[in-house]
Amino acid sequence: MPEYKPFTILIHPKVAEAERVVKEAVSKHRALIVVGRCWVHYLGRAKSKLEPGERILMIKEDGSLLVHRSVGYEPVNWQPPGCVFHTRSKDDFLEVHAVRQKPAESVIVYFDKLFLVSSMDLVDAGEFSLYASEKDMHKAILLKPSLIEEGFKPISYEKKVEPGFVDVYGMDKAGRLVVVEVKRKTATKEAAVQLAKYIDAIKGKADRKVRGILVAPSINKGAHKTLETLGLEFKYLDPKHCANALRQVETKKLADFLQ
Amino acid sequence: MPEYKPFTILIHPKVAEAERVVKEAVSKHRALIVVGRCWVHYLGRAKSKLEPGERILMIKEDGSLLVHRSVGYEPVNWQPPGCVFHTRSKDDFLEVHAVRQKPAESVIVYFDKLFLVSSMDLVDAGEFSLYASEKDMHKAILLKPSLIEEGFKPISYEKKVEPGFVDVYGMDKAGRLVVVEVKRKTATKEAAVQLAKYIDAIKGKADRKVRGILVAPSINKGAHKTLETLGLEFKYLDPKHCANALRQVETKKLADFLQ
Repeated sequence: MPEYKPFTILIHPKVAEAERVVKEAVSKHRALIVVGRCWVHYLGRAKSKLEPGERILMIKEDGSLLVHRSVGYEPVNWQPPGCVFHTRSKDDFLEVHAVRQKPAESVIVYFDKLFLVSSMDLVDAGEFSLYASEKDMHKAILLKPSLIEEGFKPISYEKKVEPGFVDVYGMDKAGRLVVVEVKRKTATKEAAVQLAKYIDAIKGKADRKVRGILVAPSINKGAHKTLETLGLEFKYLDPKHCANALRQVETKKLADFLQ
Repeated sequence: MPEYKPFTILIHPKVAEAERVVKEAVSKHRALIVVGRCWVHYLGRAKSKLEPGERILMIKEDGSLLVHRSVGYEPVNWQPPGCVFHTRSKDDFLEVHAVRQKPAESVIVYFDKLFLVSSMDLVDAGEFSLYASEKDMHKAILLKPSLIEEGFKPISYEKKVEPGFVDVYGMDKAGRLVVVEVKRKTATKEAAVQLAKYIDAIKGKADRKVRGILVAPSINKGAHKTLETLGLEFKYLDPKHCANALRQVETKKLADFLQ
């Protein structure tokens, strides 16, 4: 370090200069950052208006757009990838229109003060890997039981039931007991047999129907057949999805507040 | 335009310089942008790893953190407001740790190349207003029926029922017909009476119980009493919340894909 990377940067540019750089960044699919005083109109399924203030506009190479205020981890305005951009300077304003066709939506950002405009090619082939353990999957199910099915209510977890411990134990919306066995990887015949043993143990004590659900990101043929024979069910659930659910549950309160 | 605003900007800085600016931005609650080559570790309820690549790091005055890749409108890593930051340079790396206590979470961003570091005070008192019409509220309910209640299933909308049109018409999870009357502003006695008229008209033809739900962001005393007398229900629903729901439904597919 440092390694020099060619990129464009304008400090306190004139509107015409900024317009040129924004247009070039968009046409060459570069990442663009514009910091300045702006106001924003959104028109789509709903309608929103953001009064003037100093913000950070980011346009990405895939045509997504974000407007960030000085606080909050969520953008105040945004558009998903695939926008078409129209940029123009008009009097002393810079207008950036981000338009989508399906559904018809447009975000217009008007700048009357420009502090910083920068565009560059970001080279990024790095892989993102999210890891959730089997315990994380249990937690996700407990915090967001709809991952199993609508109306599922967990009663306990890691419940001791000979010959071991039931991962998650609950009730479905019809009041039937549900035994959930979770696997982080492909569900095998052994997992299906294990689930069947728990169910047999519980059926002996319970006075009502007991359902068994094997939960895993994938299932092999042997396990599928065994489940069918034993009258048990399978539910696809990815550890990655659980990891996201865990973060979502936790940031939900915040998001609700920010809405 | 242009109006000159004092801010800090470093182009291709050395690690030690960048460290100083990051520390100053964090301690003075300024907005910070760092563009460079980085990798990211997240450890919290789950665990994630992002391999090296060129990205944009944003830290806001409220202590939220975002790492943006060159594509996608969502950040690849993020932390909500309230993080405590620890920054240090070590050999030729810049390390930025963003730590939260409850729940215990940390994001560590390691930079080995720095292209741009900029920090500034963003002055932003502008109000954000999101507008949804009564029609938008109908649409939101149709697309996300749980806005009314879990298990609600819309059957039709703007159904002609003398003396007018029922806003949304559906069935609850117990199989009862539900007539939904939506108001964008405070629900009044008149709205309650109108709903009652629709229900009377439908009861004449239906062979089962009919529920009536008046939906609005607020309700006055007269309307509340009238609903009680008529055996009808009230559900708080904000136009702003509907507008958000509409956007969420629409971007959900994309978000699922990005997960």
